[in-house]
This record gives sequence, C-alpha cells and structure tokens, in this order.
Amino acid sequence: MDNRTAVTVIGLGSMGAALAEAFVKAGHPTTVWNRTASKAAPLVDMGAVHAEAVGDAVAAGSLVVTCLTTFDDTRAALAPAEPLLTGRTLVTLNSGSPAGARSMATWALGHGARFLAGAVKNVPSAVGAEDTLLYYGGDKGAFDEFASTLRVLGGDTVFLGDEPDLAALYEMAVGGTLLPALVGFFQGAAALQARGLTAASMVRFSVKWFEMINSVLPVFAQEIDAGDYTEPASSVNLFVAGSAHDEELAREAGLDMEWHKPFHELLRRAVEAGHGDHSISAVTEVLKQPRVRSAQPRS
Amino acid sequence: MDNRTAVTVIGLGSMGAALAEAFVKAGHPTTVWNRTASKAAPLVDMGAVHAEAVGDAVAAGSLVVTCLTTFDDTRAALAPAEPLLTGRTLVTLNSGSPAGARSMATWALGHGARFLAGAVKNVPSAVGAEDTLLYYGGDKGAFDEFASTLRVLGGDTVFLGDEPDLAALYEMAVGGTLLPALVGFFQGAAALQARGLTAASMVRFSVKWFEMINSVLPVFAQEIDAGDYTEPASSVNLFVAGSAHDEELAREAGLDMEWHKPFHELLRRAVEAGHGDHSISAVTEVLKQPRVRSAQPRS
Ligand SMILES: NC(=O)c1ccc[n+]([C@@H]2O[C@H](COP(=O)([O-])OP(=O)(O)OC[C@H]3O[C@@H](n4cnc5c(N)ncnc54)[C@H](OP(=O)(O)O)[C@@H]3O)[C@@H](O)[C@H]2O)c1
Ligand SMILES: NC(=O)c1ccc[n+]([C@@H]2O[C@H](COP(=O)([O-])OP(=O)(O)OC[C@H]3O[C@@H](n4cnc5c(N)ncnc54)[C@H](OP(=O)(O)O)[C@@H]3O)[C@@H](O)[C@H]2O)c1
Repeated sequence: MDNRTAVTVIGLGSMGAALAEAFVKAGHPTTVWNRTASKAAPLVDMGAVHAEAVGDAVAAGSLVVTCLTTFDDTRAALAPAEPLLTGRTLVTLNSGSPAGARSMATWALGHGARFLAGAVKNVPSAVGAEDTLLYYGGDKGAFDEFASTLRVLGGDTVFLGDEPDLAALYEMAVGGTLLPALVGFFQGAAALQARGLTAASMVRFSVKWFEMINSVLPVFAQEIDAGDYTEPASSVNLFVAGSAHDEELAREAGLDMEWHKPFHELLRRAVEAGHGDHSISAVTEVLKQPRVRSAQPRS
Repeated sequence: MDNRTAVTVIGLGSMGAALAEAFVKAGHPTTVWNRTASKAAPLVDMGAVHAEAVGDAVAAGSLVVTCLTTFDDTRAALAPAEPLLTGRTLVTLNSGSPAGARSMATWALGHGARFLAGAVKNVPSAVGAEDTLLYYGGDKGAFDEFASTLRVLGGDTVFLGDEPDLAALYEMAVGGTLLPALVGFFQGAAALQARGLTAASMVRFSVKWFEMINSVLPVFAQEIDAGDYTEPASSVNLFVAGSAHDEELAREAGLDMEWHKPFHELLRRAVEAGHGDHSISAVTEVLKQPRVRSAQPRS
C-alpha cells in the first residue's frame, strides 16, 4: 500500500468526486481540492486529505488529475499553483475541443509539467469499473509510468498517441452521436406518451436498436475509409422514404420536428450528389462539403 | 415437415428476399412474387415456388407476408389479388407511419383478411437469427395461430397489442434515433479523416459509447414517465457547454455543421424553460411544445 502513487484530484463535481473516490478506494494517498470547499467533505470521510489551497494540493501529488468544466477553468484554478507544476504529471479529464487541449498542453509544458489530456467515456457511476473506457493523448513516458494508477479509474485505459489533442478529437468524434441519439429517443418517448404508452415500454427495443447500429458501424467505417459506397446495406433513398413518415408521426403526436429538417437536407444533398442508391454512409461526403451559406438578400 | 404453414412472400427486395429465404430454409412451402420477376430466381434455386401472377401467389399461402417499400405500394401490388384475400392472414413488414398502417388495416379487413402490421428491427442479414427482433400489432388470433411460423424470421418475436398501428408507432419511436446517430458517427469519421486517421479507428470506441447510452436509457425513460427531471446524471447545461466544442471541431475539420443548430436551439429552449440544471431528458418537454413558426414578415 505504502508505495502507491500519491494522487491529487482538483475539481470535485459529479465526475471529479467519482475519480477521487476511486483513487481513495484503491488505496492511493489522495489529496483533493475544490473551489467550493464543502464538496470535499464526503471524500475526507472516505480517507482523502483536503487541501485548503490549490498549491498545497498540487504539491501533495506526483500525479495531478483535474476534472473541471473546461480547459480555461482548469488554467484559472491552477494559476496560483503554476510554480509547483514542474516535474509533476498533469492529467486533464474535462471535455473540450482539440484546440483547447493543444493550448492546455503548451501551458503545462511551459510550466515544466509532463502532460496528458484524457477523456472519461462514461458516466460518474461507472468510474472504477473493469469495462469503463478512458483514453489519453500526450506524454508517452508519463502514461507508461502512471498507467496502473490511471487504470484505477477504468479497466479499459488506452493511450491514443503522443499528440495531446487526440483524446479531445476522439471524444468529440465519438461523443457527437450522443445528443442526436438522445433527442431521437426523447422524441420517440414523447410520441408514445401522446398515445398513452410509457417511455419505459420502448427501452428494451431501443437497446436492441442501438446494438443493431453497433453491429453495422464496422461496415460503415470500411465504406467511409475506402470511399466506396456502392454496395449499400441501407441506401440513402431508403432513408429519404423513411423521413416522410417521421414527419407524419411527429405531426400526429403534435411534436416539434424542426430538428428533422437538416437531416432531410443532408439526404437531399446526398441524392443530388448521385448517392441515392449508395450506402447511407455516403452522407459523410456531404458533411465534408459544407453548404454554402446563402448570401445576404440582394439589394 | 409436411404440415408446415404454406407461406407467400410478396416483394423480394433486400429485406423481402431475406424473409423468403428464412421460410424456405425452415422448410415452409414458400411461394414468392415480385414485380421484377427476375429477383425470384435465387429463391427458386433454394426451393421456393415462383408465381407469375400476384393472385396465384396469394392463393398459395394461408400466411401472406408482404415486404414492399410502402403501404401504398403494397396495396397497389395486391390490387389484382383482392378477391383472394378472404380468410387469409396478411402480414405487412414494410416501414410506414401509424396512419399508413391504420388505412392498410381498414383495407385488409374490408377484403376479409385477418391483418397484422409488423416491423423488422434489424438488417436483412440478421433475418432468422435467434436474437432478431420483430414486433406486430393487430389481430391477436392470427398472431397466436402463426406465431411459430413468424418466429422463423427472428427469435425475438413480440405481439404489441391489437391496434394495427402499434408496430409502426414503436418502429418510428425507436427507429427515430438511427439517422441522427449515424450522422453523428459520419461527422466523427470525417473529423478523424481530416486528421489522417481512419473511421475504423473510432468503431471500438463508438460501440462502447452506444453501450453506455443503452445503460442510461432506463433512467431517462423513468424521468420522462415521472415528468421529474430534478436529479440529473447529465444536465442540460453540461450539453450546452459541450455544444460550443462541437462547433469548434467541425470548423477545424472544415465540416458541415448546419445540422447542429436545431440541437443547440432545443437546448436553449430547455434552459429558457428552467431546465438548465435538470436532466438532459427534460428536452422531451421542449419537443412536446413545438416552436411557434415565425409568421410572414409584416408588410
Ligand atoms: N458528468 C458526466 O457524466 C461526465 C461524463 C464525461 C465527462 N464529463 C466531463 O467532466 C468535466 C466535469 O464534469 P462534471 O459533471 O464533474 O461537472 P460539474 O459537476 O458541474 O463540476 C464542475 C467542477 O468544475 C469546477 N469548476 C468549474 N469552473 C471552475 C473555475 N473557474 N474554477 C475552479 N473550479 C471550477 C466546479 O467547482 P465548484 O464545485 O466550485 O463549482 C466543479 O468542481 C466536464 O468537462 C464534463 O464534460 C462529465
Ligand atoms: N433493408 C433494410 O435494412 C430494412 C430494414 C428494416 C426494414 N426495412 C423495410 O422493408 C421494406 C422493404 O425494404 P427493402 O430494403 O427490401 O427495399 P428494396 O430492396 O428497395 O425493395 C423494395 C421492394 O418493393 C417492391 N416494390 C416497390 N414498389 C412497388 C410497387 N409499386 N409495386 C410492386 N412492387 C413494388 C420492389 O419491387 P421491384 O424489385 O420490382 O422494384 C422490391 O421488391 C421497406 O419498407 C423498408 O423500410 C428494410
């Protein structure tokens, strides 16, 4: 137990608290800091040490994990601790853009820290589970040194490469399905409720549906990587036919359907580009060619 | 073998051909018909009987399964066979709206058929598998009589209730996540390609991500059914913060991002309605209150 890495967790929101708890439970000497100090109390009860000043927190860990809302918040919170970063490994686990991760890396390296930018691909309650995925980009030496400690946060811990924005890039590439998929689910739930049925009654079917989607992703990825959409399992035209029904159901249930429009527009442009009989994955090519915004009305 | 239900399959597109193949392989006497007759050849090679006229096809089966593009196409194709429908069970397996299923039911009952409208919740290659889901609404007696035959198409065969539009309703409620989720995936693939990375490299992460989404659907459904969004695992505000990064990445990768806008608008309206600190599932309430379209410009 005694030679377990001393870890500092900065930021004790929903996710940060879960990270700190996992380190404490795994027996790591864990120091915590949060802007709103009261959030440290439950962790102190579990065995964490609370630092009043962020500098004291940073000084206590060779591995410093931050989980604040943004990269800007992280730099702001760490400002008083800048001189103490030298020689430590800083790991950020917030969401953010690739550009944000790159500036953060420049800042951290400027203060003599080794830097990893990571992402937790799950909810706080899943932190610590064998199957929970986290991935990191940045300093390979730092990752190798702390890999077993980082694995405490999730058994599926992956190093993506030495560019510090890779986790942000993959996080957004992968995570970009979340809101659209959820809004689709919420729309379905509302349509069922309009008929006196429960949202719960669709869950089992939705779960199976996402499993089906998962089963076809490798095929779509292959089509996209090859740029060959000519052997479709499901064609663009099939989706065009389906979109009219979506509108009809939304109207029948009295639901908002403004958010459908851009999808219909993407399908229309795919057909226009000759992809009607091609795989739906050909929409990727349309996304690569942003629609030219209409100019100001002519005077 | 001899007393297996004689089945007719009308419509031999990607899905219809898979359905017919499953019946043939399960040893059912199977008669097939397709507008473009040549598509029947591979099935005849497997042991199906090809009927030249749709009336002959209908006359050959006590269970008549159709898989055409739409309900309208189905009625058009079956028109010459109308007098032969009496006493048979007609099962439609196309996509369509609840309203379309209701008119189809009225039409089928008017011609003396028992009627089930179903949906295949999977791709053609999954037809016949133990885990493949199909569900049906309509005539309970007909479902009970032919349940074991219908189960040939997929082991997970479900009767939803006696309203003939229930399968269409659930199909759309559940299936409405598909296009949005896929466009999100395609956008991510395009963003990776812009960095010289492959779409294939994100598949393993995306699969896990959809599994994560699946794990939270029961919670969201419960929140929606209770109308109580006050104990969020992920709040609307968290998504608001994330959406700015989505824009940044899309811009960096030179991708279309018009389709993001309505999602940001839904989030904005959710915040405006006081749901900022509530669960993201509160967006359901916003969808139930369609935005009032802006009126014509005043003269
Ligand atoms: N929750 C999830 O499901 C989830 C999943 C994956 C990734 N993430 C990511 O993890 C990060 C944190 O999320 P969360 O759910 O833990 O958020 P949260 O519950 O809102 O917590 C935010 C944390 O950041 C701190 N903070 C924000 N701005 C600050 C500033 N300027 N100075 C000092 N501290 C500041 C807050 O301190 P106070 O307590 O003083 O306000 C709090 O500790 C986000 O980037 C999020 O996208 C979350
Ligand atoms: N493929 C999938 O992944 C999938 C998954 C779930 C559900 N579905 C649903 O299953 C249904 C069929 O899909 P599919 O993929 O098999 O489509 P498809 O390959 O395009 O086949 C369409 C079939 O409908 C026939 N048809 C269309 N209009 C007709 C008309 N007016 N008269 C006579 N025949 C007509 C076509 O005949 P011809 O050969 O003469 O053109 C063909 O047999 C659709 O509603 C679809 O949404 C498909």
